Amino acid sequence: MTEAAARSIEAPSCTQAHTIAARLSAAREESLHLCDRLETEDYVVQPMPEVSPPKWHLGHTTWFFEQFILRGYAPDYPVFHAGYALLFNSYYKSAGPHWQQSRRGALSRPTVREILAYRHHVDLAMMTLLHSPACTPEVLMLTKAGIQHEQQHQELLLMDIKAILGANPLMPRYSTRPPAPVETAAAGWSHIAAGLHAIGTDATDFAYDNERPRHRVWLEDAAISACMVSNSEYREFIKDGGYENPRLWTSKGWDWVQMNNIRAPLYWLNDEENGNGEWKREFTFSGAGALDEAAPVMHISWFEADAYARWRGYRLPTEQEYEIFLAQHQHQHPPTPPRGLWCWTSSQYSPYPGFHPFAVPLAEYNGKFMCNQFVLRGGCFATPRDHYRISYRNFYEPQQRWMFSGIRLARD
Amino acid sequence: MTEAAARSIEAPSCTQAHTIAARLSAAREESLHLCDRLETEDYVVQPMPEVSPPKWHLGHTTWFFEQFILRGYAPDYPVFHAGYALLFNSYYKSAGPHWQQSRRGALSRPTVREILAYRHHVDLAMMTLLHSPACTPEVLMLTKAGIQHEQQHQELLLMDIKAILGANPLMPRYSTRPPAPVETAAAGWSHIAAGLHAIGTDATDFAYDNERPRHRVWLEDAAISACMVSNSEYREFIKDGGYENPRLWTSKGWDWVQMNNIRAPLYWLNDEENGNGEWKREFTFSGAGALDEAAPVMHISWFEADAYARWRGYRLPTEQEYEIFLAQHQHQHPPTPPRGLWCWTSSQYSPYPGFHPFAVPLAEYNGKFMCNQFVLRGGCFATPRDHYRISYRNFYEPQQRWMFSGIRLARD
Amino acid sequence: MTEAAARSIEAPSCTQAHTIAARLSAAREESLHLCDRLETEDYVVQPMPEVSPPKWHLGHTTWFFEQFILRGYAPDYPVFHAGYALLFNSYYKSAGPHWQQSRRGALSRPTVREILAYRHHVDLAMMTLLHSPACTPEVLMLTKAGIQHEQQHQELLLMDIKAILGANPLMPRYSTRPPAPVETAAAGWSHIAAGLHAIGTDATDFAYDNERPRHRVWLEDAAISACMVSNSEYREFIKDGGYENPRLWTSKGWDWVQMNNIRAPLYWLNDEENGNGEWKREFTFSGAGALDEAAPVMHISWFEADAYARWRGYRLPTEQEYEIFLAQHQHQHPPTPPRGLWCWTSSQYSPYPGFHPFAVPLAEYNGKFMCNQFVLRGGCFATPRDHYRISYRNFYEPQQRWMFSGIRLARD
Amino acid sequence: MTEAAARSIEAPSCTQAHTIAARLSAAREESLHLCDRLETEDYVVQPMPEVSPPKWHLGHTTWFFEQFILRGYAPDYPVFHAGYALLFNSYYKSAGPHWQQSRRGALSRPTVREILAYRHHVDLAMMTLLHSPACTPEVLMLTKAGIQHEQQHQELLLMDIKAILGANPLMPRYSTRPPAPVETAAAGWSHIAAGLHAIGTDATDFAYDNERPRHRVWLEDAAISACMVSNSEYREFIKDGGYENPRLWTSKGWDWVQMNNIRAPLYWLNDEENGNGEWKREFTFSGAGALDEAAPVMHISWFEADAYARWRGYRLPTEQEYEIFLAQHQHQHPPTPPRGLWCWTSSQYSPYPGFHPFAVPLAEYNGKFMCNQFVLRGGCFATPRDHYRISYRNFYEPQQRWMFSGIRLARD
Repeated sequence: MTEAAARSIEAPSCTQAHTIAARLSAAREESLHLCDRLETEDYVVQPMPEVSPPKWHLGHTTWFFEQFILRGYAPDYPVFHAGYALLFNSYYKSAGPHWQQSRRGALSRPTVREILAYRHHVDLAMMTLLHSPACTPEVLMLTKAGIQHEQQHQELLLMDIKAILGANPLMPRYSTRPPAPVETAAAGWSHIAAGLHAIGTDATDFAYDNERPRHRVWLEDAAISACMVSNSEYREFIKDGGYENPRLWTSKGWDWVQMNNIRAPLYWLNDEENGNGEWKREFTFSGAGALDEAAPVMHISWFEADAYARWRGYRLPTEQEYEIFLAQHQHQHPPTPPRGLWCWTSSQYSPYPGFHPFAVPLAEYNGKFMCNQFVLRGGCFATPRDHYRISYRNFYEPQQRWMFSGIRLARD
Repeated sequence: MTEAAARSIEAPSCTQAHTIAARLSAAREESLHLCDRLETEDYVVQPMPEVSPPKWHLGHTTWFFEQFILRGYAPDYPVFHAGYALLFNSYYKSAGPHWQQSRRGALSRPTVREILAYRHHVDLAMMTLLHSPACTPEVLMLTKAGIQHEQQHQELLLMDIKAILGANPLMPRYSTRPPAPVETAAAGWSHIAAGLHAIGTDATDFAYDNERPRHRVWLEDAAISACMVSNSEYREFIKDGGYENPRLWTSKGWDWVQMNNIRAPLYWLNDEENGNGEWKREFTFSGAGALDEAAPVMHISWFEADAYARWRGYRLPTEQEYEIFLAQHQHQHPPTPPRGLWCWTSSQYSPYPGFHPFAVPLAEYNGKFMCNQFVLRGGCFATPRDHYRISYRNFYEPQQRWMFSGIRLARD
Repeated sequence: MTEAAARSIEAPSCTQAHTIAARLSAAREESLHLCDRLETEDYVVQPMPEVSPPKWHLGHTTWFFEQFILRGYAPDYPVFHAGYALLFNSYYKSAGPHWQQSRRGALSRPTVREILAYRHHVDLAMMTLLHSPACTPEVLMLTKAGIQHEQQHQELLLMDIKAILGANPLMPRYSTRPPAPVETAAAGWSHIAAGLHAIGTDATDFAYDNERPRHRVWLEDAAISACMVSNSEYREFIKDGGYENPRLWTSKGWDWVQMNNIRAPLYWLNDEENGNGEWKREFTFSGAGALDEAAPVMHISWFEADAYARWRGYRLPTEQEYEIFLAQHQHQHPPTPPRGLWCWTSSQYSPYPGFHPFAVPLAEYNGKFMCNQFVLRGGCFATPRDHYRISYRNFYEPQQRWMFSGIRLARD
Repeated sequence: MTEAAARSIEAPSCTQAHTIAARLSAAREESLHLCDRLETEDYVVQPMPEVSPPKWHLGHTTWFFEQFILRGYAPDYPVFHAGYALLFNSYYKSAGPHWQQSRRGALSRPTVREILAYRHHVDLAMMTLLHSPACTPEVLMLTKAGIQHEQQHQELLLMDIKAILGANPLMPRYSTRPPAPVETAAAGWSHIAAGLHAIGTDATDFAYDNERPRHRVWLEDAAISACMVSNSEYREFIKDGGYENPRLWTSKGWDWVQMNNIRAPLYWLNDEENGNGEWKREFTFSGAGALDEAAPVMHISWFEADAYARWRGYRLPTEQEYEIFLAQHQHQHPPTPPRGLWCWTSSQYSPYPGFHPFAVPLAEYNGKFMCNQFVLRGGCFATPRDHYRISYRNFYEPQQRWMFSGIRLARD
């Protein structure tokens, strides 16, 4: 958090600490709950460099509390294992050396059981700290950050579990009734009027540094589609030769398509050799099955979202347009749009005017990734409800597609 | 150009055609002039994938006129050589297959002499067309685009010649009196007032599609340094351990530094083994010599510019701020700032609101590169005078540094 | 086996089948026994492309019996799982498609438990077959091959388990009393007299195709060291700058040293940063500990063995010399040399004169690897006793070193 | 040369020096002659990492005389240019640092003209030395080595010129009457009788260290085909699906075919898209033309030679068999076989028993390459007549094919 934000925090009441402790417990349990249906072996593997083994997520989110809160604020806290800092530090250079991300799947130890013991140790220490005199406003603020961080990794857990099961030719199921996106909006366009709009947040409650500060932007008249692009609509793009037509793609996008022989969204299945047949099936959390034609298309890269929009004669919305769109619909009953999926925007991930990164130790949380990534907005079925904010900025590289990414069209 | 723009063009007068023909001749001669001091062998090599051999530039800019103007508009134009389209098409998928960019240095043929004959053939045909009844407004507009394209490659020629000579341990000189940046501004900050500002252009004369349309943006109070960062100032960053401190860098920037063992700007020389000595010398167009301490630092990547600004406690300007800054100084005598160097901005290269790419055949000129590149503004000593506009948007990838790139700081 | 060999086999007696069944059971149990001390997670990971997860070994050796024996010879054998052939075929093109070797660690399923069930299913079917009328001489011969194959993978299991535990910075132990090489020979040289010698085997019992046929070679006078090179002797090479002196290395070896910054045998530990300290510790099956100075050096590449021999003023033995050396010592009590370690020879792995690969389906077992590999001779502590033959030819690529490879010197 | 060899040399007579000087002049002129038909640009490029620019060959062979003879033996010899040692040292670690081989095409300087001046300077100094009192036996021996080295590079020049012209889609011609292989032998098999044979050389005149010493080998009965495999015979292999059948290939060979999409010998042309048509044309020194069906197939890798032999039911000869085969035919009139092409053998390149590398400074000439290469025997049309010996061992990596490599079959 910024120094200014830190200074404005008053001494915490018992109630506050109690509430946060309860939220912490709930969040910590939810992470374990998501892994309930995994076999021990599923916790270990890393089929792609950007996927982390589930046991790593469970260890890393635990290390976050140990490293940034317990080590500094909990009197006499005994570090659980001196070797874990190296393994569970993701990328915080200020917190010491870290294991190479793409090699997380090379580690069989610590075992799942050992990591669960680590979680237990840290959870108890956090409860003790939150209910002790050592619980300062800063501890509470960092605990809120830790909860947000835990929740962020819950969505990553689901992404990575899907990647782990989906990379396996046996296509095992995660559940019989899988988490799934819902899209209920009627067709049509939602209009944004030209003018000065306010974007971002100055929330006194928790928000990431990259959402701050609230600031003015000038937008021109625009419209955003009420509906997300569906699987069947996206399949038309494939049938029309979208993946063979370089004029629809950015230069880097076209190179990516060629180099990787991309023909359809990740997890779509094609029974004919070399993918020459029709795309009728897909892998989901419940295994391989018929493609859900009405559902929003997901697991597409920015390259594909951008090319699809161009093929339709539209464009992707900017992240500012998308935030206004979300703000306009947040008080409807039922809220429209539902949070079907994260939508790609045309905005590359950059600092807002007046951006200041969180203070150390969380300075590396967001700012250092503001290069060669695109913003996604809107949340998805896998995003914990109380983790999400309208000002929330998700971001990925333009070729990545193992997250639950989709398309909403825009026009001038 | 857009269809609307094309429609608005009236039939060209003789004077117009004559003027454009004269500008064309001048531009074509200037390209040859830049190569005057080269040996035949210098025209051929490609020391880095992004560098093109000078003879390729001479052929490619010629092909541009043949492909986009003469083939379509010059009656009975005889194509010079059927095999050249493959070799001299850079990346226009709509113009047929093209040779792989990184393999341009693998081709010894056509020879320089043959390419000069090709230029001569095309130049004569262009002169004939421009003075004939076949010279339509569209021909004139495309010729203007061709001239701009030729000029753009003149700067690339200088970049590539420097790369070719600089990659050679013999460090040959290009000239005794090299082209060089000048920086005469006094110290201080130039202020930009919060408010709605107009950015971009609707020029009826030539401008690239990526500069269009002129549109409103809201800017907050900001200031931009009158002076560019000098070599001696940048060397302080090195001495202070800037290249060893991960907190100053974006995540991708730090990876780049580590992977490539980056220690100083491109072309800086260090006489001690492994670069452990002081950086006192540099390679310039006149060979190896003492580092010009007062001159603006150049040949740095966006990663380095961004890290340097953070080290100083400032930031890079946005491209919008930079355009306003340029506009504020354009009518001063002498103009301040002089065009010392292209300055990196914090803006990733994106379409303006209401952006429409040029019509075919030039649709691929700019739009398809709007991904993972950063904008540079301001021009440099190598930019032809009548090529430059305040609204001009140059763009490179964040790790590239063989162009004449520098730093101007900004603050809120 | 060759057709001729197959034809010469008589109908098997009950005794024969019973004996082979007993050996099969013992071999199958030994594989499981080697995994006794593993955690479930240890069965799954693949820290280097050439290492296979232990659960893959357990599945692959089982598939070998199912694919090459049960499918063809066991009446009504029900294939355990249709999807396993893809996953557990290593590289037999004639047996259908196979999963990419370097991606074996990307698979969490089948689980260890499922693979154990697969083993049980196949073991029962093999027992039934061996005691049934369907048990032909060819079944027995293939079963012998399957046992040899299982044993070969037992050594691989130990190699891979060591690699898996050793790649982990926590350096977990496999056992408190690890398998270890023993070297008891007295110093001195063992002489080989110039003349015609017989090499290889025509054994009617099992031997691999690459050991056949027995044939004549002319050898010159030579001598082979009775002792293997020890850790302390090898450390002298390091101290003397062996890894910094290009004149000691083959061209490819020197490139490998530079590219990978090789400084010591695999698993040697150096506590100072960047490996600048002394090499005093090593990772073994019982975790990190003091370097055993008297023990034979192991986990070295052919490049290192070759450079070390040159540094000493000697050379590596040829594989023919080594086989004669082994033959000369096989009847001593105690046998000298003990099988301390596999020794690198100077021989590239090539077919013997008159070589014929096994008949289909085992034609791909050995012959297709006769390119760019070097032969190792002599066996090691990890080689099952009844798997080893004097004529046995082991082979690896010159840069590989996760096997138990060592050095015995030779001279003219 | 070995010390023993050096010691046995007597003081040179004037006649000897004069003869060698004449041979030196002839060899040096021949190198230039081969470049007569090149354009300046052809001297510069490097289309593949293993190809060197012709101007590099001209410089390197010159440096060889300067580095190994003139610097040490010519009184007051003035080094031509201090910067050339870095550029023209190929890989002699004992002669100081050298420029990276794969980056030779990145250098435009020194120019061809400058390199010709370098050649002139060194040639004059060599003539002076050879006719002066400083001309010792060692100078003569090193000069012989230098001549052999120059001749070796003449064949490389032809290989590289073909690669440079052939990599160019314009397919320029080198000459109207190209160097070409001739094959006049009648069909049939040439027999080798089982027994002890002598291989290699102890020549007192020049021979490379890798051909020494002459030694005994035991060979079994074998036969070698009198004819080389022709283009039309090889095309049958393609038509029969040879490139699609993994059972014909070594494991590494099959990976190479798949990874590089190999379908035919290098320089064969196929007019249909994706190489789906018939192979009817080829690129030769005189440009693209009809495939010469009767000529020996050339420009094939060891992988292809080995697979072809297997497809035919034969094998490649060993290098020992091939040397005996050559010895049996050397005194026939006309000699059979003519030296059509270099033939791949099944022998990996290893030291002969009793091998000793040349003394410093030429110790690095051959021995350090004895790893992962295969031997070719027999010479080709491009091998200078007085460079060739029956004991000559040529060697390349199994995937390389820009040399003039062909196939002669063998059987037991």
